[in-house]
Parts: sequence; C-alpha cells; structure tokens
Amino acid sequence: MSNNYSPSHPLRLKDVAHWDMETDVAIAGFGIAGACAAIEAHQAGARVCILEVAAAAGGSAALSGGEFYLGGGGGTPVQKAAGFEDATEDFFNYLMMAGGPGADEARVRLYADSALAHYHWLNEQGIPFKGTYLPGKWLEPTTDDTLIWSGSEAAWPFAQQAKPAPRGHAAQMEGWGAGKLIMEKLTARVMQLGVEAHFSSRVLALIADEDNKVHGLVVRIDGQPRMLRAHKGVILCAGGYICNDEMLRRYTPQALGCPVPTTGGNDDGSGIRMGISVGAAAIHMDQFFATRPFFPPGSLVKGIFINENGQRFINEDAYHGRVTHYMLRQPNGRVWLLVDNSIFKRPMTRPDIDIAAVGETWEEVESELGLPQGELTHTVECYNRNAGQGLDPLWHKDAAYLKPLVEAPFAAMSYSERDYPASFFTLGGLSTLTTGQVLDAGGQVIGGLYAAGRTACGLPRWGEGYSSGMSLGDSSFFGREAGRHAAGGA
Amino acid sequence: MSNNYSPSHPLRLKDVAHWDMETDVAIAGFGIAGACAAIEAHQAGARVCILEVAAAAGGSAALSGGEFYLGGGGGTPVQKAAGFEDATEDFFNYLMMAGGPGADEARVRLYADSALAHYHWLNEQGIPFKGTYLPGKWLEPTTDDTLIWSGSEAAWPFAQQAKPAPRGHAAQMEGWGAGKLIMEKLTARVMQLGVEAHFSSRVLALIADEDNKVHGLVVRIDGQPRMLRAHKGVILCAGGYICNDEMLRRYTPQALGCPVPTTGGNDDGSGIRMGISVGAAAIHMDQFFATRPFFPPGSLVKGIFINENGQRFINEDAYHGRVTHYMLRQPNGRVWLLVDNSIFKRPMTRPDIDIAAVGETWEEVESELGLPQGELTHTVECYNRNAGQGLDPLWHKDAAYLKPLVEAPFAAMSYSERDYPASFFTLGGLSTLTTGQVLDAGGQVIGGLYAAGRTACGLPRWGEGYSSGMSLGDSSFFGREAGRHAAGGA
Repeated sequence: MSNNYSPSHPLRLKDVAHWDMETDVAIAGFGIAGACAAIEAHQAGARVCILEVAAAAGGSAALSGGEFYLGGGGGTPVQKAAGFEDATEDFFNYLMMAGGPGADEARVRLYADSALAHYHWLNEQGIPFKGTYLPGKWLEPTTDDTLIWSGSEAAWPFAQQAKPAPRGHAAQMEGWGAGKLIMEKLTARVMQLGVEAHFSSRVLALIADEDNKVHGLVVRIDGQPRMLRAHKGVILCAGGYICNDEMLRRYTPQALGCPVPTTGGNDDGSGIRMGISVGAAAIHMDQFFATRPFFPPGSLVKGIFINENGQRFINEDAYHGRVTHYMLRQPNGRVWLLVDNSIFKRPMTRPDIDIAAVGETWEEVESELGLPQGELTHTVECYNRNAGQGLDPLWHKDAAYLKPLVEAPFAAMSYSERDYPASFFTLGGLSTLTTGQVLDAGGQVIGGLYAAGRTACGLPRWGEGYSSGMSLGDSSFFGREAGRHAAGGA
Repeated sequence: MSNNYSPSHPLRLKDVAHWDMETDVAIAGFGIAGACAAIEAHQAGARVCILEVAAAAGGSAALSGGEFYLGGGGGTPVQKAAGFEDATEDFFNYLMMAGGPGADEARVRLYADSALAHYHWLNEQGIPFKGTYLPGKWLEPTTDDTLIWSGSEAAWPFAQQAKPAPRGHAAQMEGWGAGKLIMEKLTARVMQLGVEAHFSSRVLALIADEDNKVHGLVVRIDGQPRMLRAHKGVILCAGGYICNDEMLRRYTPQALGCPVPTTGGNDDGSGIRMGISVGAAAIHMDQFFATRPFFPPGSLVKGIFINENGQRFINEDAYHGRVTHYMLRQPNGRVWLLVDNSIFKRPMTRPDIDIAAVGETWEEVESELGLPQGELTHTVECYNRNAGQGLDPLWHKDAAYLKPLVEAPFAAMSYSERDYPASFFTLGGLSTLTTGQVLDAGGQVIGGLYAAGRTACGLPRWGEGYSSGMSLGDSSFFGREAGRHAAGGA
C-alpha cells in the first residue's frame, strides 16, 4: 500500500476517502526541532501529534555534542559568571558573518534578541547546565562543564567585527555526546505534557489541496498508511538528507569528498522532498558542515597548515570546520600541519594520524614531503620571523597561538583527503520565514506548512561559518517558533 | 487579470473554463534553446507554439559572443583543417572535469557523442562558420574566424587528463557578439518553417492537474491571459534568473559580489519558478559563471596573479572565468596581476585598468602595494627561477607562458573586486534528463514538462569549469533534444 505514496508527491485532499486521525498540529520527526515544536504547540493550546520513523525519539541531535550556540543580552548567566560580556550586537554581527553571503538577517535578528531567554527556556525544560567555563580549544567538553569557545569568535576576520565571547553551551554530562542527555530531557518533557507520539511511524507524503495548501499527512503506523488531518498545520522536522546519496549527488556533490556522515541514521531528505512536492523553494543546498578536527590539543593550533605548494592558506585558530573547508579546496586535497617538538601531540580524535615527514631541519621535512624546493622553508621562515614578534601579517592568527616553530625535530602531519576522512552534514533546506512558514519559489507562504531543524535552511547556512552549537540552537529555537505559530499562538 | 496568475503557482486543470489556443508543444522563451526546440519539434511533425516576452526573438543568446563548444568524433571539419584531432573520449573527459563534482555523466556522454553532428546541424540551419583557426588567447574572435581556445583545455589540471584541442566555434561575423547573427539565422529558420510565434507575450503560469502533470500554460497576449493547451508538452526555455534580485539573494548570494549581469534582460527566473511550482528539483543553484577578463592580449597570461599575502593562487593560463572564481575567494577580494615591461599591455576589455603600483624593482612594487615584506618578492623570485627553466612547480602553468619577469619597470594591475567589477550569469536550474524531461525531488519525471537552456541545469554547472561556448552548445543541443522528445519523436 505504501508504495503508492511518495514524499515527492502530495496526496490530494480530494483523494482522502476518510481521515484516520485528527490533530491540530502534526509534526514529522521527533528530533530536537520536533520536540521543541511539540512543547510550544501544546503549551499554546493545540492538540499535537508527533511522528517518528525510528523506534525512539532523538534524531541526529541525540548523536551530537550537545552544545547550544547562545549569547547576547549582555551574556547568559554562564558567560557572565566566567567574566564574559556579550552584547546582542556582537552576537548579531558574529551570526551574520557566520551565515555568509546568504545570511538571513531577520532570522539572525530574532535569534540574537532571543537567545538569552531561550537559554532559560531550555533549562526549564530540564536540560542541566553546570554553569562552568572550560578555557582552551575544544570540540565539545568531555568534562561536564558548560561554556566553551565553539566557533571562530576570537579569530580573524570575525574578531575584528564582533567582540569575541565563548558561546557554546553544553549540557551537563561527563564524556562525549551530551546530545543524548538533551534529547532524553526534551523527550521526557514532551511525553509528560501528554503529547500524542507515534514511533516506528514513517511519514509517507503530505496531503494538500490543489492550491498546495497543506491539510495533513499520510503516515505509516503499524504497517498501515493512515490519513492524519492537521487542522492548524504540519511541521516538517525530519532532518537533512545526508543519508540520501541520490540527493547528495544532485544537490551537494562537493560533500561527496567527505565520507563520514554525521547522522542519527534517518536524514533521508524526505522532509525537504515533501516541501518541494508542494512547490517549496529549497535553498543553499550546496552548503554543508565538514570537519577533520585537528585540535584538541590546543597546542596544535600553534602549528601551521600548508598545501602542496608549501603555502599557508588560513589562520589556524579559526573553527576546525572553517579550516576544513579551506583544506577541501587546496590543490589535490593535500594538506599538512607543520609542528615542532614543543607543540607536537597527536590529535584527540585521530591519534593514529599519519606523520608524513619528520626532520631535524625544515629543509628535511620539505624534501621528505617532495614539495617544490624552497617554498615550505620560506613559509616557515616568514612565519617564525613574524611570530617571534607576535605578528602574523599574512593570515592574522591571534598572538596567543603565535610561537616560532624552532625546536627540532620537526614534523608534518597529514590532513590530506586520502589520509583523514572528513565528517559532514548538510545545511541546505526549505526556505522559511522566522515563523517556520515554508516559502515557495516566489517567496510566498505555503498554507499549512512549517519546517524547522535541518529540513529548513536555518541560521547555519554556510560551511565556512559554521560554529558548534549553531544547529542545536537554531533547531530548538526555530522549532519552538514553528510550534507556537502553527498552534495559532504567535 | 494577470495578477491572479503566478509562475510560482500552477493553474489547476479543472479551473480552466475553456482553452483559448491549442498546440502540441508549447515553448516558453524564444532564445537559442527555444528556437532549437521549436525546429526539432516542428520537424518531428508536431504543432508548435513559441512564446516570447520580448518584442523579438533572441534572448540572452543574442547578446553572447556566439561560440559553440564542439568537438569529439576525431574533430569537427574546422578542428581537422587546423590540424587538431579531437577524440570523443578527450572531449568527454574535458566536459566531465568542466562539470565539476556534480557533472552529469549521461548528459556529457550524449553531448560528447553528438557534438560533431550538432555542428553540421547548426550549419544546416543557416549559421555560417568560416572554418578558420585563430591561435592565441581570446575571449571570442573579433575577426570572422571560427575556431579558438575558449576554455582551460591546454591548462593544468585539464590537459593532464584530456588531450587538449580548441573547441570554441564562433559564427562568422566581424566584431564582438556573433550571438546576434546566430539568433537571426535560427529565428529566420523557425519562422520559415511556419512555427506559430507570439512576441511581447509573457507566460504567466503552468496549467497542471492535481498530480502536477502539465497540460499547458497561461500566456498574456495582447494584454489578456490566454489558456494554451499543449497536448504533448510544455518546454521551459525562459533563461536563468540573473535579473531577479530576490532569487539571487536566496539562491546564489555569492554572485552578489559580481555587479555586471550578462543577460538579454529577461532572465527573471520565471521558468525555474514554474518548474518548482509543480514539484521540480532545482539544482546547483549556487553556481554561476563570473569573469574579469584579463586577456587578451595573451602576453598578460605570462604575468602572475597574487593575493594580498603576495601568494600566487592559480595557473594563469586557465580560462578567465576559472581564474576569476579563484580571485573571488582571495582574502578581502584583493588581487593583482604582476607584469614586467616586456609583457605589459592594457587588457582589451578594461583599458583603463588601475595600475596599483610601478617600480624599478619588485621590492618597490611590494612596498607600494603595502604587502607583507618579502612575500611578493619571494613569489617572483621562485617564479622567475623556475620559469627560466620552463617550469612552474607550484601551479603548473604551461611552458608557453613561462617567462621570467625581469625587465623593469615592473607593475601590478589591480583585479580587485572594488577596481574591476565582474560579469556573471547563473548556471543552476531545473533537474532534467537528457531528453529535457523535468525531474521532481525524488528523481521522477514530471509529466508533460521539459526544460532547456539556462532554465535547466545543463552541461555548464560549475563556475570553475565553465568554458566559452558551453552555454550555447548545451542550450542549442538539449533544446533540440527536448523539442524532439516532446513531439514524441525521440
């Protein structure tokens, strides 16, 4: 039976013989966006029905590091306790830069103005924040600390246009992956409110009238397609499309060079395809997050990256995902991190990294790598000469990470494509208003349809600007907005 | 009346009270794709109706340089006469590289196998090719010659994987802009065949049933919306969206840094929006052609481009559009071409180019540009040392353009964003099969709908790989395919 339905084709309203189920707000996907949408819609008085294809709630958020990108309003309590002031305008400016050339100013403005309140809301839903600050360069806390530098805030060119502050707020949990804890808490909250939830239930298609206004969806529950009427709206929170090779090839071919998908397993693009099926615009589908983390330890940030021409190509204190996007575009994908004995350690997430060359002199390293003569050595000479004075006239790395690389032995660690597979996830999605309302190709609202999380194109929409915590921050906040608006309470 | 119709919303079939006009194949847009589609559909026995918003045929093709990118099959008669062999596999390999990570192999295969026959077909439609070869580096012939090097064929890394041959075939016309002549000839051919054509006629919306199958379109003729039934299919040949700022902002924000649109004036995105309105996938919408031509004269290719760190960043013998995409991503958009007295001339398309620095030594030039000390001079020293031996170990420029820059005075010409506005046009569009059939987000055919030209995402789909003649070649060839297939003759 289900073979008759496709996310790429709406079932027309007139073809619905009878409704099997009714609700006010139907939510496709019980990840973080869906959970937050459900809470808000319920609290605005709507009946809510949430549908999850997996056997349990969580989505890709449950696999994540569990950080929210938050700040502004002078600072969250955690930022303030650690001595950081964070003016809304600095937060706004950073998010605009991080959004890249396609940044959505209305979305950034609302988020910058609201993130402080959102911190408290998250806390009220049961998400614990210890309130402590962990200095240094980390991917996520492996301690139960809260606040870390999780982006390029302190790095050129961001720091020049927005006063830096750490903004990654991680839930309180020892070890990797606090996203699991976050989703446990949000799931418990949703269930405690009495929201109707169905698991192992795949949304098959939207139900729309001839004008493409959405009235409900077809969902397979217990093996049977059910017609679910949504009187107030359908919210698509079904994740991105990283598990859909065909969509990756068509929309995001550059990401095919990144072999390690970051996903809970159900980012199959069905949410985005359902939107497209009723005329929605999908935007920034070329963009993706990618990373080959090279820190921690933070000492490695004092190294310098070179390409096969022996040239540096970025300030190494930028966010690891930004650095990785610059790696991806170097000739032949060949990139090495040059370190001296004083800063050498193995990267935490890749302890078996390939040491491509070791030498008592930089000339030896250059020769062992087989690079054009005199280029690597010139690059190191220039770097060392300036670093000794606390300067990096080429790429403007912050003085905190400038230290001449002069203590033999010297080494080149390979971050080349073939030696270190990059992780990635998709950033493109449906075009929406800040309310979550989905827009068609002409910028008009499609009635009855909302999207949030990675089914929408949100705050994070530029691989070079991504910062840890932006996806959870965006998904949770704009999930709430979509839920409240769909319930009619906006 | 027309206000009720939008390219972003199909008119539903059941709402069509009566048909004002009927045809087999309706074509939206009388540029090169539409003209070629009309000829083929007519010759396959279909009634054809072609609709053009402007007062005359031509579209953006009429504003173009009038080159077709053709080769394979051992070589066109023009290639052969000039002594160039061009095996289909070399042509295929080049086109695959030029298509970038998202290259469409089926499309490239068909085109590589068919381009030689397509050359003859174009000629048979009345397009004259003088048959002569113009050596050197040109944007397009300003003479009436035919064959030029119009891409990166002879440049690294293309030349390493596909035996180079010149493939730009320009129509025979003195002066710039042979596209005008091409469209005169094709228009005459269409009209001579007796195809029904309406000018000053804007296509307002598609007409589709509830399954999104397309049955016709609404077109405003003489100020009145007319219902045009197309029994066999609608072909969207309405150009790209370079004239639509809102679409550029949403889909192609990086192109906003290129202020000079290359368009006949009607690339308003309505074709792409009509496709999206019935569930079509629009792909590679981030991609665009861009250029700040730095040659001719070809002597300037012997110069070297540097960024504000004094680093080279590409082999300067690559296609000017490829070089420009690399320029766009340099820090702060600042780029200079370094030349010595022996190669200095002003670029043909920008004779008033800003000479940012002149010096008797390269140290003076470096200092006058205010660049980090020792970097520009190192770059020149390395380049000169190797060029003297016919080598470019960093960026692999072909030996023909390697010459030490040693004859004072020396100069730096500014190709920075603020000094030299780039021209551009869009490359993303509807996802189609080689038949022109438009695909939905799930890769299924949308009944009754075809697209060609820049309304579709065609052979040219990667700004870094574009070569002159690819857009006219793609639009004319795949316009024909769509016409023939829509007529039922495929």
